[in-house]
Amino acid sequence: MLAHRLIERKRDGGRIDPGEWRALALAYAKGHVPDYQMAALLMACFLRGLDRSETSALTEAMLTSGDRLDLEHLGRPRIDKHSTGGVGDKVSLVLAPLIASLGVAVPMMSGRSLGHTGGTLDKLESIPGFRTDLSLAQATRQLEEIGCVLIGQTPEIAPADKKMYALRDATATVESIPLIASSIMSKKLAEDLTGLVVDMKRGSGAFIPELERVLELAQVMIALGADHGCPTVALVTAMDRPLGRACGNALEVEESIAALKGEGPPDLMDVTYALGVEMLLLAHAAVDATEARAMLVEAIASGRAAEHFQKIIEAQGGNPAVLDDPAILPQAAECELFTAPRRGFVARIEPKAIGRGIIEMGGGRTKVDDVIAPGVGFVITARPGDWVEVGEPMATIFARDRAGIGSGRQALRSAVVVADEAEPPLPLVSHRVSAAGVEEYRTV
Amino acid sequence: MLAHRLIERKRDGGRIDPGEWRALALAYAKGHVPDYQMAALLMACFLRGLDRSETSALTEAMLTSGDRLDLEHLGRPRIDKHSTGGVGDKVSLVLAPLIASLGVAVPMMSGRSLGHTGGTLDKLESIPGFRTDLSLAQATRQLEEIGCVLIGQTPEIAPADKKMYALRDATATVESIPLIASSIMSKKLAEDLTGLVVDMKRGSGAFIPELERVLELAQVMIALGADHGCPTVALVTAMDRPLGRACGNALEVEESIAALKGEGPPDLMDVTYALGVEMLLLAHAAVDATEARAMLVEAIASGRAAEHFQKIIEAQGGNPAVLDDPAILPQAAECELFTAPRRGFVARIEPKAIGRGIIEMGGGRTKVDDVIAPGVGFVITARPGDWVEVGEPMATIFARDRAGIGSGRQALRSAVVVADEAEPPLPLVSHRVSAAGVEEYRTV
Repeated sequence: MLAHRLIERKRDGGRIDPGEWRALALAYAKGHVPDYQMAALLMACFLRGLDRSETSALTEAMLTSGDRLDLEHLGRPRIDKHSTGGVGDKVSLVLAPLIASLGVAVPMMSGRSLGHTGGTLDKLESIPGFRTDLSLAQATRQLEEIGCVLIGQTPEIAPADKKMYALRDATATVESIPLIASSIMSKKLAEDLTGLVVDMKRGSGAFIPELERVLELAQVMIALGADHGCPTVALVTAMDRPLGRACGNALEVEESIAALKGEGPPDLMDVTYALGVEMLLLAHAAVDATEARAMLVEAIASGRAAEHFQKIIEAQGGNPAVLDDPAILPQAAECELFTAPRRGFVARIEPKAIGRGIIEMGGGRTKVDDVIAPGVGFVITARPGDWVEVGEPMATIFARDRAGIGSGRQALRSAVVVADEAEPPLPLVSHRVSAAGVEEYRTV
Repeated sequence: MLAHRLIERKRDGGRIDPGEWRALALAYAKGHVPDYQMAALLMACFLRGLDRSETSALTEAMLTSGDRLDLEHLGRPRIDKHSTGGVGDKVSLVLAPLIASLGVAVPMMSGRSLGHTGGTLDKLESIPGFRTDLSLAQATRQLEEIGCVLIGQTPEIAPADKKMYALRDATATVESIPLIASSIMSKKLAEDLTGLVVDMKRGSGAFIPELERVLELAQVMIALGADHGCPTVALVTAMDRPLGRACGNALEVEESIAALKGEGPPDLMDVTYALGVEMLLLAHAAVDATEARAMLVEAIASGRAAEHFQKIIEAQGGNPAVLDDPAILPQAAECELFTAPRRGFVARIEPKAIGRGIIEMGGGRTKVDDVIAPGVGFVITARPGDWVEVGEPMATIFARDRAGIGSGRQALRSAVVVADEAEPPLPLVSHRVSAAGVEEYRTV
């Protein structure tokens, strides 16, 4: 009866109280409210909206539907970074060990690839032996020992969110700002953080392409963080082209290792440093952005960050030798160069087409239980704005077989546009959003 | 994938094409579309609406998701009456045999009680032995033989509607005019009618109380009838008080038999005649309303109508002796008079409180599979506007036991208001709606 009453009220534009959200989330997590009632409610929420305090109450309700980490005893700041998802976005793999090597705890809970975007868990699992299915007790122990853990959403964390997320996917109720914000924040708040940095992707390859809605989502998330004692800052970054050169699970691990050794592509490093600066500032580990950036650069130059990644890999059952010998990673059986079809400017490298190409080649998912071929993907060396001559190499395709190479070639043909003129791409980091409001981003 | 695409489109205010409705209804009836997707779509339809042609396509889709009667070979007009539901509304029990006794076929498919309103099937089944679960073949045979059959929605009739109706009940998506209209009409069109009369209830005891929305629903149903070759006329009748005196299954059968013998309460007879006139006119069985009414009066006075009810009861396995000896019907173990609590005018007799009282006493349902105690209910002799002295009998309560009498007394105390003044009740029949538009009703 509770569910029916709440559906009716939301349908008519009314509000749902904190106590009602809490009872509903618990009942839904336990299977006492059927999916069809939740689906009707989600559609009513999608179309009628949730105000700020309802969004906060829903977040709290999903959070308290399950367990959470309790990390106060670590005695140091606990900061995570969340990305709204993109292609080639391997920042988490670089940033988590980098920040942890500077004495800030990073309890990072990530997701799997779905749709055209990649997932941190899938990337990590391409490291032979690496396990992401740790219990909360195991995760806590690892945080005590090495200050960083990289895991998936355990069944105990926000179970109401887990069920609702799958249901939203099936019922066309994903693209709602309050539902997105509360879903992300219910999981992040379960990490018992003292601060959160969000990488808000914008542009054609992002789930929400339009800047205006990206800023709105950022502001809702920042307010939710503030409501729950977790100061949150967001940076808006470009996803109108892939980030870095490597796109595909094992290829991205290889590029992340290179980045940790100071050999990462400039755009990947810039985004990593920008987000890292915010993390260190939230942790009060640096007095200002200049100092924070210098700390990051030093942690990489000294080898400490790479060493920390090795410790994490070892702790989670992976082969730590991968840091020195990336050939340990799964390799593609076939590879082929992709060359410029004509001379001109690189006008576009479309992330969605790249992401879909990886799925086509077996390196992504169309269903939750698809098995991934970790070695496939692209290394794209051309950047938007570059001048290319006909026949000049632009990318390398990595595939399981010749058919995969064909799919990869097809994907690049539709993703890569060479033309007489090229519009400038989006600025790599364009805005910073905090409790103080939205400001244009200025690089340190 | 089809369902997801259609949810998304309706969510954004788009239109669903006839072919898409057809594919969706079929897939849903077969269980290929899960309830949670249909629930999200229904909420989107509720909030975004369906235009006239979509409503028509949905009706057609639900109709063609199953079988239908094929009655052309009867060689005579086939007219049904549908009521939007009320308390004490036993008109179908009187009207079906009355019209059939005048040579017009009446293939009547009715529902069960749910919510505060009664259901024709439950009333009929209080006649010992009476079966309403006939197959379409059996129903057709009975129509050939005696021109009337009183059955429930068989599993083959509009199965998509049957599932959607149950789902709407659970997901707060009932009160949508296009969804109500298409649900009713998909079942009625499956009866292969040449005409349909709809009794549109208005007032506090109706599912849609407001006149404006009642008229809107009537117009949508009339348009749907016209789209599918079934001329439809609607009368708006009062449901701000129960219809007739008896409320409760067996009690209403008894009053219906009295009505067929010319001893029905005036309001019940007036509504029955008004609807019957429209049925005979749609059947072209009378040249005008005056002639039609005279035919109805004569069929009752001559005993032909009552005799026809006896034939129907016999054909459907019931004990036909009930016509002469209503004591054959299930009797309540306890009864008690309810008297006026003060002197004054009867200001209100609230149908919802009466209907809920019957449920409380075991004579209605809160769940689809509740078993009904057929003998319980009320006979309410007081009418709104009457003057009563303190202690004067107003009603009789019929119950299974003393506890039931207590519930009944409680229900009457909240339903019946005696005051110093009384507003006039709603006119019994207020409007006539046809393809020509809405007009005030004028009694013949």
